[in-house]
Amino acid sequence: MTSEIVTAAILVIGDEILSGRTKDKNIGYIADYMTAIGIDVKEVRVVSDDEPEVVAALNALRARYTYVFTTGGIGPTHDDITADCIAKAFGVSIDYHPEAVAIMKERVAKMGGKLNEARMRMTRIPAGAALVANKVSGAPGFWIGNVITMAGVPSIMQAMLDEVAPKLKTGVKMLSASVRADAKEGDIGTELGAVAKAYPDAIIGSYPFIDENGGPNTNIVVRSRDAGKLDEVRAAVEAMLAKVKARLAH
Amino acid sequence: MTSEIVTAAILVIGDEILSGRTKDKNIGYIADYMTAIGIDVKEVRVVSDDEPEVVAALNALRARYTYVFTTGGIGPTHDDITADCIAKAFGVSIDYHPEAVAIMKERVAKMGGKLNEARMRMTRIPAGAALVANKVSGAPGFWIGNVITMAGVPSIMQAMLDEVAPKLKTGVKMLSASVRADAKEGDIGTELGAVAKAYPDAIIGSYPFIDENGGPNTNIVVRSRDAGKLDEVRAAVEAMLAKVKARLAH
Repeated sequence: MTSEIVTAAILVIGDEILSGRTKDKNIGYIADYMTAIGIDVKEVRVVSDDEPEVVAALNALRARYTYVFTTGGIGPTHDDITADCIAKAFGVSIDYHPEAVAIMKERVAKMGGKLNEARMRMTRIPAGAALVANKVSGAPGFWIGNVITMAGVPSIMQAMLDEVAPKLKTGVKMLSASVRADAKEGDIGTELGAVAKAYPDAIIGSYPFIDENGGPNTNIVVRSRDAGKLDEVRAAVEAMLAKVKARLAH
Repeated sequence: MTSEIVTAAILVIGDEILSGRTKDKNIGYIADYMTAIGIDVKEVRVVSDDEPEVVAALNALRARYTYVFTTGGIGPTHDDITADCIAKAFGVSIDYHPEAVAIMKERVAKMGGKLNEARMRMTRIPAGAALVANKVSGAPGFWIGNVITMAGVPSIMQAMLDEVAPKLKTGVKMLSASVRADAKEGDIGTELGAVAKAYPDAIIGSYPFIDENGGPNTNIVVRSRDAGKLDEVRAAVEAMLAKVKARLAH
């Protein structure tokens, strides 16, 4: 753990997400995972299977954040272009990786099928990248510079993230406390804004929801990396709520 | 309907998505909706509740695509900064909008509560924007230039999208046909690549899935704006599959 803030971006690659055909399940999963280990996800982009788009997004994100996680586009078919895009973005060559080829050979021997051109495509890895093991279906992801490239299939992506996570630099965890307001957002918004102004070093979010009685309700989420500060601001939010609700009751 | 290609981007605004606390349900919904009406979603970004980030993303997207749909950040609390960001991006002022104020007055009269500072915050609209009705909870979205700003709560966003959709310019619909391969992606990838190369004006995607027998299977999706071309490429995919499967059977 380091005292600096460690950040990440997620780059989802795939026409099928943009067309709506496939609903992304990786963004929320990675976001939860990163929050739990002390890495702040700062930005997400979804781009199509188009080389200039992928390269531009990747270069924009890798320059700004500690890590970039990509999902999608590392399968055996012609529309899987992520590995080539990453090689291009880093300005390195791409070739069959001996260790990846060995993994695929073993996999094919065990599962049947041939180590044909399509399967060999999955062993093409940008020069200098380290492999990321895929315990689900063999074909590896990879890690080059600050970019970690994973599969799009959620079960495979999750297994790859488990492989990578212990090796990531992590920062001081963002702590959070949720306070159920039992009030409408519009009834407490002004006063909540005053609390937020009084504690500029904490992050206060307000999230409306429909509660079990079918009425509008609000969750207030306080976030801070400092446990003492978190308690202080949560207490301030609770005191504000008690005051506003007492006034509304009159 | 126009013969040109109509494009869109989605900009999701909110710390709660990036932290994983809230799982986005709007991207997939808007993507499906746009595909159905003949608008191509080309890019999605998720950014935090941070003015420079929102303004930069908005300006990048609105310059590139026919429409930009934003979700989130138009509620009554201090962390709802989307309207201000959009005014800033367009270089226009922002003020209480008489029609929005009237809507909120009526809403408060009906539902109880006060038209306090927090609720008035939801009537601040960038100069020159048209309101987008919110049949769920009153507080409107708005439309300025090529940017349509909607709520983050899915039911409200969906109602706003229904209001806006009939007014959008739409292009020739992208048609699609799905072919179940009943084969592993790695067994058909090389031959599918050859079909894709033979039909560069169609889009062919390959999506692995685990089928009802628990084994690896593949859906091939052919996309084209031309119905004749779509049929032609689908037939080519089917012929390729029959040939590969006959070979595998030996």
